Amino acid sequence: MAESGIPVVLVGLGEIGQAIARLALARPDLEVVAAVDAARAKAGRPLGEVIGAAAPALAIASDPREAYAAAKGGVVLLATGSRFDEVRPELERAVEAGLSVVSTCEELAYPFLDHEEEASALDRLAEEHDVAILGTGVNPGFVLDRLPAVLGQITGPVRHLRGVRVVDAARRRTALLRKIGVGLDEEAFDQAAERGVVGHVGLVESAALAAVGLGLPLDEVEDEMIPLLAEEDWDGPVPVRRGQVAGISQVARIFADEREVVRLELTISVGAQDPHDELELDADPPVRVLFPGGLDGDLASAAAVVNAVPAVTELRGLVTVLDLPAGR
Amino acid sequence: MAESGIPVVLVGLGEIGQAIARLALARPDLEVVAAVDAARAKAGRPLGEVIGAAAPALAIASDPREAYAAAKGGVVLLATGSRFDEVRPELERAVEAGLSVVSTCEELAYPFLDHEEEASALDRLAEEHDVAILGTGVNPGFVLDRLPAVLGQITGPVRHLRGVRVVDAARRRTALLRKIGVGLDEEAFDQAAERGVVGHVGLVESAALAAVGLGLPLDEVEDEMIPLLAEEDWDGPVPVRRGQVAGISQVARIFADEREVVRLELTISVGAQDPHDELELDADPPVRVLFPGGLDGDLASAAAVVNAVPAVTELRGLVTVLDLPAGR
Repeated sequence: MAESGIPVVLVGLGEIGQAIARLALARPDLEVVAAVDAARAKAGRPLGEVIGAAAPALAIASDPREAYAAAKGGVVLLATGSRFDEVRPELERAVEAGLSVVSTCEELAYPFLDHEEEASALDRLAEEHDVAILGTGVNPGFVLDRLPAVLGQITGPVRHLRGVRVVDAARRRTALLRKIGVGLDEEAFDQAAERGVVGHVGLVESAALAAVGLGLPLDEVEDEMIPLLAEEDWDGPVPVRRGQVAGISQVARIFADEREVVRLELTISVGAQDPHDELELDADPPVRVLFPGGLDGDLASAAAVVNAVPAVTELRGLVTVLDLPAGR
Repeated sequence: MAESGIPVVLVGLGEIGQAIARLALARPDLEVVAAVDAARAKAGRPLGEVIGAAAPALAIASDPREAYAAAKGGVVLLATGSRFDEVRPELERAVEAGLSVVSTCEELAYPFLDHEEEASALDRLAEEHDVAILGTGVNPGFVLDRLPAVLGQITGPVRHLRGVRVVDAARRRTALLRKIGVGLDEEAFDQAAERGVVGHVGLVESAALAAVGLGLPLDEVEDEMIPLLAEEDWDGPVPVRRGQVAGISQVARIFADEREVVRLELTISVGAQDPHDELELDADPPVRVLFPGGLDGDLASAAAVVNAVPAVTELRGLVTVLDLPAGR
């Protein structure tokens, strides 16, 4: 182990976790000291072989406890579940071992929304152990929440925020295709949606986070999703027949005094037209910003996690991306 | 004086200072306790009359000392000079009286670039007095520095930043028209440029700040300006005849190892075509962002100053916009 660098433990080596690993290894200010993945196919294998990049001679562990004990004062980069309840035990374990955590967990971007009591308990636990917990990524974590909050710094009071994100799923990883129900029949999609296993997790968290960041009250929250059906066959890694689900359209809204103050519209589907991101702040001055082509979600999310590490070591408690400074 | 709110002293009530005053008065978390302007035409007049808005019954003072003594622990919103040397005595006076300062002073956005020694001394002075000093606005302070730094949070290492800002000066305040030499003959412009009285101040500070925010080295700095000549007459508040100066084109560049790593291009001229702001980060993933029509400079700058106040009360020393968190 080099004498410098913030000790980092990688937990979760799926596609995003692997991208996180490659970026973390490339940074001179971070020191990857352990890698953990519960999957049998990965445990015991050399990290470099699994991520396809030069890496220190580390075997992937299946249990993080030993790694945590060795990396006290460091930071866990957690890329496993999307739901707060899924990652909570791991967060507690890391915090109790004296490590901060930066995670891709979508609900962790703003867990106070749907898990207020548990999030507050976790906040206290992190404060007690003098560490921080942060959920980040590109969506949630940047384009529809942190960025509008930053843009709100150059306007007077914001009356309304509209955010639009259109992603062509044909360019994205297989795990995402499954998450948005690609290739399902409408009925199967509806059942999966009811069980909460399809749909983008985190849109409503983004909306709430944007409201908080813009100083808007948060009286009521709405989240709606509809499947988008394929107009033609697609022979991708998850094939789609005409009439089957090609993706989703999701809208999250925040109301204050029965007036809509935040509206986020997300479309992710195979072959989506005109992929882009767009933000519109109704304020003085008005602000409209456009990302032609849209931000690459996977790589950007991995970068958001890795770039947040130095700032997180300076913070305490369960924080959000709104607490992060602008610069590296 | 209400019992709540951060005490705020307004210093400088030109056009931007007046916009700052109106925004500060509208915020429930700020308490405007004094207003200062050295101009004879303003001293002694009621604040509300000068800014054209409802305001507490405050007479504008010509000397800030009494105001500072009464507002210890508060924040000065300073909108006077563009040059660091011009505002330095006022910064020292405020800091020594125990007040933080947020200022529109362009060079103060990153004074370490051209005034390293004086900036470091001021940094120590602010630390000693447990207060903070910040230079901000929209340019410098946001679109070409803070925003690219924020965008760099979702990419791997940034190889190059290109920023473009095109402003149609016909829509802007008279003071800006004079600053960019509108209506001068070419010869008069060149002389004024040599004396440093025309040209946009702060572009090179933005470039340096962006480099710092993106973690790029800063070996060499270049700043160039050329006048743009009017192709037709314009009968604005500062009239222009064909062939006279209609505005400026300015480029600031940062080099590392003889390679350009930051390039900021600014055009401000009467009748400039396609006003917009644009940022391009050469990185993985690449990021391109566009503000169609461009950000309104004056109002946005005033908002940037006022919105920074709560964060500044939590900071210490001579800080930059890179230290500010995203949210309100």
